Amino acid sequence: MSNTSYTELEKLFNRIYQLQHLASIGHWDMASMMPAGGSQARGEALAEVSVIINELISDTRTGDLIQSAQQSKIELSDWQTANLREMHRLWLNATSISSELVKAKALAGSQCEHAWRNLRAENNWQDFQPLLENVIDLTIEESQQRADASSLSPYDALLNLYEPGQKSTAIDLIFSELVEFLPAFIQEVVEKQADEAVIQPTGPFPIEAQRELGLTLMQKIGFNFEHGRLDVSHHPFCGGVAEDVRITTRYSENDFSESLMGVLHETGHAKYEQGLPEDWLNQPVGSARGMGIHESQSLFQEMQIARSLPFLKFSAPIIQSLLANEQTNEQCWSAQNLYQLNNRVKPDFIRVNADEVTYPMHVILRYEIEKLLINRQLAVKDLPEIWDEKMQQYLGLSTAGNYKDGCMQDIHWTDGSLGYFPTYTLGAMNAAQLYYAADKAIPDLCENISNGEFEMLNQWQKEKVWSMGSFYSIDELMIHATGEKLNTRYYINHLKKRFLS
Amino acid sequence: MSNTSYTELEKLFNRIYQLQHLASIGHWDMASMMPAGGSQARGEALAEVSVIINELISDTRTGDLIQSAQQSKIELSDWQTANLREMHRLWLNATSISSELVKAKALAGSQCEHAWRNLRAENNWQDFQPLLENVIDLTIEESQQRADASSLSPYDALLNLYEPGQKSTAIDLIFSELVEFLPAFIQEVVEKQADEAVIQPTGPFPIEAQRELGLTLMQKIGFNFEHGRLDVSHHPFCGGVAEDVRITTRYSENDFSESLMGVLHETGHAKYEQGLPEDWLNQPVGSARGMGIHESQSLFQEMQIARSLPFLKFSAPIIQSLLANEQTNEQCWSAQNLYQLNNRVKPDFIRVNADEVTYPMHVILRYEIEKLLINRQLAVKDLPEIWDEKMQQYLGLSTAGNYKDGCMQDIHWTDGSLGYFPTYTLGAMNAAQLYYAADKAIPDLCENISNGEFEMLNQWQKEKVWSMGSFYSIDELMIHATGEKLNTRYYINHLKKRFLS
Repeated sequence: MSNTSYTELEKLFNRIYQLQHLASIGHWDMASMMPAGGSQARGEALAEVSVIINELISDTRTGDLIQSAQQSKIELSDWQTANLREMHRLWLNATSISSELVKAKALAGSQCEHAWRNLRAENNWQDFQPLLENVIDLTIEESQQRADASSLSPYDALLNLYEPGQKSTAIDLIFSELVEFLPAFIQEVVEKQADEAVIQPTGPFPIEAQRELGLTLMQKIGFNFEHGRLDVSHHPFCGGVAEDVRITTRYSENDFSESLMGVLHETGHAKYEQGLPEDWLNQPVGSARGMGIHESQSLFQEMQIARSLPFLKFSAPIIQSLLANEQTNEQCWSAQNLYQLNNRVKPDFIRVNADEVTYPMHVILRYEIEKLLINRQLAVKDLPEIWDEKMQQYLGLSTAGNYKDGCMQDIHWTDGSLGYFPTYTLGAMNAAQLYYAADKAIPDLCENISNGEFEMLNQWQKEKVWSMGSFYSIDELMIHATGEKLNTRYYINHLKKRFLS
Repeated sequence: MSNTSYTELEKLFNRIYQLQHLASIGHWDMASMMPAGGSQARGEALAEVSVIINELISDTRTGDLIQSAQQSKIELSDWQTANLREMHRLWLNATSISSELVKAKALAGSQCEHAWRNLRAENNWQDFQPLLENVIDLTIEESQQRADASSLSPYDALLNLYEPGQKSTAIDLIFSELVEFLPAFIQEVVEKQADEAVIQPTGPFPIEAQRELGLTLMQKIGFNFEHGRLDVSHHPFCGGVAEDVRITTRYSENDFSESLMGVLHETGHAKYEQGLPEDWLNQPVGSARGMGIHESQSLFQEMQIARSLPFLKFSAPIIQSLLANEQTNEQCWSAQNLYQLNNRVKPDFIRVNADEVTYPMHVILRYEIEKLLINRQLAVKDLPEIWDEKMQQYLGLSTAGNYKDGCMQDIHWTDGSLGYFPTYTLGAMNAAQLYYAADKAIPDLCENISNGEFEMLNQWQKEKVWSMGSFYSIDELMIHATGEKLNTRYYINHLKKRFLS
C-alpha cells in the first residue's frame, strides 16, 4: 500500500517543476539571446506561467492532499517526509497572503522598478520616494499577513522566503559581532595595503581570450559542460535548471578580473545546482537550501578558492598564457601580484563593487534599515538621512544628497524584496565555515588547489552540501557539513588570515 | 453585454498561447543551444507542457463554453467568429481520438523514430518493418476515430490536421495534372541543361562570411531582427513565436548555396510569422493558415524570388563581395551563372535534396502510397516494392534493395505523420499562383527585385496573406489573394518559363 495523497503531490510538484524548467530557460534566453522586440511577449508568457504555478500550489486541493498525506498511516521514507515538509512550506508561502495583495504588490513593484532605472540615473529621490512608499506599505502588509499565518515576526516572515527556518534574533547576534569587529579591521587593512606595491595589468584583453580563460578555469574546477553553458548577459547570473545550468558574464576589454571572478562566482552556484540530488530534482526537496546556502557556494568558489594564493599559483600561468600582450609588465602575472590585486580593500559607496571586507557593512546597513521599515520605526522619507548616518559610521563615507550611490543604488527594495539582503553575508560566513571544515577533512587541500586538483574538494562539497538538496534545515545542513551551526569565528579568522597575515 | 463564454475562451486560449510560447523557445534552445546532457530533462518538460495544453483544450468545460458561445445571442465580430471556429476545430482535433490511442501512438512513434536513426543508416528494412507496422496500425486507428468524429474520410481526417478544410479528391485532381505533365517535362529539361556550361564556385567559404551573407540578405528582404534571430542547428527550421522568430541553418565550407537558399527559405516562413495579425497573435485565429500556406511563403521566397534571375542580379555582387577568394573563377559570380547553378535539374533518390522540378514527383509518390496504407489497400511489408515501382515510373530510378534512399529516407511516417507530405507541393503551387497575382498587382515587380527593393512586395504579401492569419479558410485565402482557388496552371507556367525558356 502507498500513501496515495503523497503520490499525487509528487505528480503535482513534478508538473510544477517542468513548468519552472521552461520558465527558467525563457528567463535565460530573455537575458542572453532574445532580440529586444521580443520582450513584451516573453514578459507575458513568463507572467502567465507564474500565475499557473501559483494556482497549482495554492489550490485548495493541494492543501487537502498535504494534510491527508501528513495524517496518513502509511510511513514515508526520510526523503519523502522532508519532501512533504517542503511542499507544505511552499503551500504556506503561496497561500498566506491574499491574491489582491499579490497583484497590488506586483503592480507597484513593477512600476517602482521600471521608474527606478531612470530616476536612479537622474539622482531623483523626490519622484522615487512616493513609488517606494507604495511598495514598502504593501510589503509591510505582506509581512503582517505572513506573520499572521505563521508563528513568526513580520520581518522574519519575509526573511523566511529566502532563508527558511532562520530568525532575525540569531542574525542580530551574528551581525553585532561583525559590527564590533569590522570597522576597525577595515581601517587596519587599508593602512597595511597603502604600503603595498601592486602592478595593474594593462589591456586591452580581447573578449575571445577572456572567454577562453573563463571556460578553461570553469572546466578545471569542475563545471560540467555536458550539463551547462557560459554566455553573455548585462547582469551576470546563474539560471537554467539543475540538468542544464546556464551561467552568464559580461566582458570589459580593459579589465579581465571582474569578469573572471564573476564567472568563477557563478560557477560556484552552478556546481551546487549540478550536484543536487539526482533522484529528487523534480521535487521540492531536490532544490537548493535557500539563498544563504546558495550564496555560500558561489562565495566558497570565489572568495575561499579563486581569490586565494594557492588558486592563483595554479591559475596565474593559465591567465598569463591567454591574456599577456606586449604592453603588460611580465611581473604583473605573478601569483603574488594577482593575489594582492584580487584582495584590495577600499571603503566605497556601491555594494556590488565592494571587496570582501567592506561588503558585510553594506549588507548590515541595509538589514538594519529594512527591519526598521517593516516594523514601522522608520518612514521611507527618512531613508536618505539614516543611510548617510550609517555609511559614515560604518565606512566613513557620506551619501548626503548622493541618492544614486546611496539608498537608490539597489534593485531589491524597488519590488519589495525585503529580507533578502542578509543572505549575502550569511553566505560569506557559511562559506568560511565550510572551507574550514573541508580543510580539516581533506589532506593537503592547499597543495591540491595549488596543483589545480579539485576532485576531492568537489567530492566533499557534493557529499556535505550539494547532494543534500533541501533534505535538512539550514542549521542541520551546517551541522552535517561542519559539526556546528553558523558561527562568526571562522569568517573573522579567514579575514584576519587573508588580509593581515 | 458581452458573450461571456467567448470571453472566457479567449482567456483560456491566451493561456495556451503563453505555454506554447515557452515550449517553442524550449524547442529552439534544444536544437540550437542546449548541451547534450540536457536532453532528457528538456524532453520531459516539453512532454509535460504538451499534456497540460492538451488537457486545457480537451477539457469538457472547453467544449461546453464553445457550444454556449456559438449559441449565445450576443453577436461576435467577424474575427471573433472566425476565432471561435478555429477554437472549435482545435477542440475537435484534441477530443476526437481516445487518450489511450494518443499515448499508444506517441510511444510507438517515438520507438520507431528513435530506431529509424540507426536502422536507416544500416539500410535495415527487416528490423524497421515491424516498428513501422505498429505505427501505421495505430495511425489507421487514429484516422478512423477522427473520421467518425467528422464527416471526413479517414485519410482526409489526417490531412485536415495540416490542411484544414481540404479534401483529397481535390488534391487527386491537381496532382493528376502534375503526373501527366512532369515526367516528360523533367526529361526535356535534363536534355536542355546537358548542353549548358555552368561554373561551380570553389571553396572553402568561411562560415563567418556565409553567416554575414545570410544576415545581409535576410535584412534586405525584410526579416525584422528586432523580432527574430538566425542561429545554427543540425536540421534547419523556423521556430520561436510570431513576436520573436527563430530561424536556423547549417553551414558547409564547401557549399555556400545550400545554406544560403535554406536561410532564404526559412526567412519566407519567418516573414509570414512576423506579419501575422498583431491584435490576434495570442488567439487561434491569429496563427498561420495551415502547412500548405506556410510552405507557400517559404517557397515564394526561395523558388519564386531567391532562385530567380532578377534576384540573383541583385544579390550576385553581394555574394561575390563576401565569398570570392583567389581560387574562384571571376565568371562564376555572374547572375546568369548563379541562376543556372541554382536551377539544375537531376532526378535523384532523396526528396530533401531534390530540385524544384523533380520535387513534386517525390511528394506525389508518398501521397499515393500513404493513401493506400490508410485505406488498407497496401501492407507495410509491400512498401519497398511499390516505392521502387513508382520511382522507376516517375523518375526513372530503381530503389530495389536500397531502403535507406528509398522508403526509409523520411522521418514523417516514423511517428505517424501521414497526411503531411502533400502540403509541400501544395505550397509550391500556391507560391506560383501568389507570385503571378503579385506580379499583376505590383508595377515593375521584376525590376524592383533586380534593384533589391522588396517593400511593395512585402506589403502585398502582408495584406493578402500574412495579416489574415486563420481568418479565412485556405480556399478563401487563395481567392482573397489571387482571385481563384488553387489551380495547376500558374505552377506549370512558372516551371515552363523558368526551365525551358
